[in-house]
Amino acid sequence: MLSRKIAESTVRRLAIYLRLLEEFDGKGAATLSSEVLARRAGTTSAQVRKDLSFFGSFGKRGLGYDARALAVQLRKILGLTRRYRVLLLGAGRLAGALVQYARFAESGFDIVAVVDKDPQKIGNRWGEVVVEDVKQLETLVREKHVEIAILVTPAESAQELVDRLITCGIHAVLNFAPVQLHVPDDVEVKNVNLAVELETLSYALHHHSAR
Amino acid sequence: MLSRKIAESTVRRLAIYLRLLEEFDGKGAATLSSEVLARRAGTTSAQVRKDLSFFGSFGKRGLGYDARALAVQLRKILGLTRRYRVLLLGAGRLAGALVQYARFAESGFDIVAVVDKDPQKIGNRWGEVVVEDVKQLETLVREKHVEIAILVTPAESAQELVDRLITCGIHAVLNFAPVQLHVPDDVEVKNVNLAVELETLSYALHHHSAR
Repeated sequence: MLSRKIAESTVRRLAIYLRLLEEFDGKGAATLSSEVLARRAGTTSAQVRKDLSFFGSFGKRGLGYDARALAVQLRKILGLTRRYRVLLLGAGRLAGALVQYARFAESGFDIVAVVDKDPQKIGNRWGEVVVEDVKQLETLVREKHVEIAILVTPAESAQELVDRLITCGIHAVLNFAPVQLHVPDDVEVKNVNLAVELETLSYALHHHSAR
Repeated sequence: MLSRKIAESTVRRLAIYLRLLEEFDGKGAATLSSEVLARRAGTTSAQVRKDLSFFGSFGKRGLGYDARALAVQLRKILGLTRRYRVLLLGAGRLAGALVQYARFAESGFDIVAVVDKDPQKIGNRWGEVVVEDVKQLETLVREKHVEIAILVTPAESAQELVDRLITCGIHAVLNFAPVQLHVPDDVEVKNVNLAVELETLSYALHHHSAR
């Protein structure tokens, strides 16, 4: 176990390297250089070597990295040597797309429960799971041993739901609700805010066309 | 027009403030303090004041910010005083959810074209638009005056498609494909990589449970 805390930006690059290594491995490539990895990951080869040096020596000078061995190490570092049990809060269209988004299961994340407050949605079958009433949230988290919650709810209900999740011991939340959530230090929240992404683009276009 | 370049982290916070102001305005609140804005946006009131001071003085000491006036200014800064024409590359399930994701249109982003290479998908009606053959990409970008492209394609075809988009003058791309795109400096790419988000969570959980 590593005792140092790794910066989030490093963790994100490690996840990107892993994606690239899996892609290379799928194509039968046995080794690849820090230069190739850097070019595909949008960084420098010095950064790649630095990121990977945190975890010991994987590469041989002049030979590059063994793609499969490095992928195994990255999966260990990222905590991907086991599967995670995920609960989805909100059974709307975006949530539906996420459930079917193949990489979730491929990457080791299993959707074990879906909840909503809409009686029209409760009882619907979503693949292997049935949409349940959000009133059952605490029971589901406990019985299904949920570790990660994905929030795909309207902004106004997000904080209340997160408070309930924290009370039942959830430490990891992926938030699609367009709101900043307040959580204690030991709870990790990642935000995916599509409107904010689009607005950084409109800002760039606006100021680009004005140049 | 501003001559200074604003850091991306600032632009992202401005987009979050705007979201919060619109929410407040919807509830009829006329003014709000930098403290309230900071708490909801997950930052400090000093940071809020600093961010907003870039653009002149909006607040009155002791009275707070006029929510509606500040929202108008933020929309101007973010380039949201006009609508943007968006093309969607890939007509799969996630793309479908994005099209229906109400906030796109609300925020001023109109999906004017959808393309795919799958003959099963070409010709399908998606709301106001019909899925067209990706071979028509260049024609569509030109005829529909597309400004922003959203990539929801498999990783392997993403770079080739971006190269084609750049050739026809696109400067803004929102990328959901799990790959790092290579673009010239005057092209802005925002990446939404759901697997990377999940893996930063698994990293946190893994190292949390090991503590």
